[in-house]
Amino acid sequence: MAAPVALIQGASRGLGLAFCKHILKSKSPAAVIATCRNPDGAGELRALEVQNPGRLTVVRLDVTREEDVQGAAEWVKGSFGRLDLIVNSSAMLHPSGKGETSLRDVSAKGIISTLTTNTVGPLVMAKYFAPLLQKGGGGFGQQPAEKAKQHSGIIVNITAKVGSIGDNGLGGWYSYRMSKAALNMATRNLSIELGRSRPKVVCVSLHPGTVNTDLSRPYHRNVPEDKLFSTEKSVKCLMSIIDTLNIEKTGKAYNWDGSELPW
Amino acid sequence: MAAPVALIQGASRGLGLAFCKHILKSKSPAAVIATCRNPDGAGELRALEVQNPGRLTVVRLDVTREEDVQGAAEWVKGSFGRLDLIVNSSAMLHPSGKGETSLRDVSAKGIISTLTTNTVGPLVMAKYFAPLLQKGGGGFGQQPAEKAKQHSGIIVNITAKVGSIGDNGLGGWYSYRMSKAALNMATRNLSIELGRSRPKVVCVSLHPGTVNTDLSRPYHRNVPEDKLFSTEKSVKCLMSIIDTLNIEKTGKAYNWDGSELPW
Ligand SMILES: NC(=O)c1ccc[n+]([C@@H]2O[C@H](COP(=O)([O-])OP(=O)(O)OC[C@H]3O[C@@H](n4cnc5c(N)ncnc54)[C@H](OP(=O)(O)O)[C@@H]3O)[C@@H](O)[C@H]2O)c1
Ligand SMILES: NC(=O)c1ccc[n+]([C@@H]2O[C@H](COP(=O)([O-])OP(=O)(O)OC[C@H]3O[C@@H](n4cnc5c(N)ncnc54)[C@H](OP(=O)(O)O)[C@@H]3O)[C@@H](O)[C@H]2O)c1
Repeated sequence: MAAPVALIQGASRGLGLAFCKHILKSKSPAAVIATCRNPDGAGELRALEVQNPGRLTVVRLDVTREEDVQGAAEWVKGSFGRLDLIVNSSAMLHPSGKGETSLRDVSAKGIISTLTTNTVGPLVMAKYFAPLLQKGGGGFGQQPAEKAKQHSGIIVNITAKVGSIGDNGLGGWYSYRMSKAALNMATRNLSIELGRSRPKVVCVSLHPGTVNTDLSRPYHRNVPEDKLFSTEKSVKCLMSIIDTLNIEKTGKAYNWDGSELPW
Repeated sequence: MAAPVALIQGASRGLGLAFCKHILKSKSPAAVIATCRNPDGAGELRALEVQNPGRLTVVRLDVTREEDVQGAAEWVKGSFGRLDLIVNSSAMLHPSGKGETSLRDVSAKGIISTLTTNTVGPLVMAKYFAPLLQKGGGGFGQQPAEKAKQHSGIIVNITAKVGSIGDNGLGGWYSYRMSKAALNMATRNLSIELGRSRPKVVCVSLHPGTVNTDLSRPYHRNVPEDKLFSTEKSVKCLMSIIDTLNIEKTGKAYNWDGSELPW
């Protein structure tokens, strides 16, 4: 059987970069396609590419540009012809770098920009890459014995617990919360459309915990030390969830510890 | 006590227009501010204005233009100084007029446009009109005896049952479903921020049922006759929910029959 192929979207930094490292190290011989909007500025990812010739390929993709997504999908089609896993990791809290603390901070421009990256991006990814995932070998997740229930590929949308409407007790962070709630709807819709198809593609939302990255940096001092995960720890947790995914578990949002999150 | 003031956003047609008629007829002496993006094209609303001098005022407001929202809020501030109720009714299924049946129909442009009208619009409305609702007289809903629990105003975001992630069993309609899920998050966030303030503003999402309007027209032949509500019937149901709203009921999504919808 051919080696599995994973595509990590938003791989220049943070969790995306850690996903690439983890798969290279722990999922040999899987190949990794790492996409980011500015490869020239992604020094650590570029170094990883040099260290892993033939296993890691960096591809330019700005998730807010549909033509980039389409172009990357065509390239993957030509180079690999299939995919086993996509992780949509790119996101922002808000163009300002901080979530809105109150309505005063809300602007149409800020929320549209946040929605475009965090929500529209992953959906457009699914549009262009679903055909490749349907050609995947099911190299990630857990395959049931029954052939009709097996999956060919997996889409992971990295969500956030603050994107759970039912769990929202604090408010604030309008753009980010709304973008992740809408992303969870995309996950649910994708799980239905791609769960009907044959072969099946699994789609879930995963919350990585509060992780030590640039995104959460403005808030680190409010987080107890043992609650602030390293990217390595978070990705290890998320990968153990991914390792157990199958079509029965599709269309849901899971916390880093594997428990289900409310919508 | 001064007459209550209601603002209906998206009043040129459909449910928004029916809300104006209902309040004029059944909530005398309440005043109605009816906003729409093109008053010259809104013949029926204009006629209603002529028939109800001093009680109905039409104001131009394209909900996708933040400067329009701000300008309308300044006008209302100058003319009334306060508001008791806002209903955000404007929305589209998709710029094409039909929801996406599958990923093939998804485009970044289509979903951004849908999100901008259906989701960003109502949130930007809340930003500029919340101060006026905080000056409202609490003329809609049900006031509890305890003063600290009384509300000064109400925001109603018209949502859709297909915007419930938990209730989504069919898939499709990506843009519309995602826009309403994100709108429900906005409702929840607004209920928290404005429920903390004094005086309090109530915010809920309401599903109007399947209603005989232009929005649902492409699908009417799939709807059993008794399940397709007239705008009058739907607004009557929604207004009886609004009549019982108070701060205990804030931050939720309700079906036309008053039952709570899952997120
Ligand atoms: N960190 C946390 O505590 C936390 C908690 C909950 C959920 N999450 C989620 O985890 C995921 C990863 O976040 P992180 O913490 O790793 O954040 P991060 O370190 O700030 O990384 C964000 C990544 O998104 C990329 N990105 C932004 N806009 C992009 C675009 N238009 N096209 C392509 N890539 C784009 C960035 O690329 P550039 O380098 O080009 O800017 C960067 O690689 C996000 O979905 C986030 O919402 C994080
Ligand atoms: N009908 C149903 O079965 C149904 C079911 C569930 C939920 N809903 C919800 O009910 C609400 C009302 O829908 P409806 O059925 O009455 O639809 P409708 O008859 O198609 O009316 C849509 C209204 O939205 C306005 N609008 C669109 N874009 C706008 C913008 N940028 N700025 C200002 N106004 C704008 C339209 O104004 P123009 O005249 O200028 O185009 C029109 O007044 C919507 O939120 C919809 O999602 C409807």
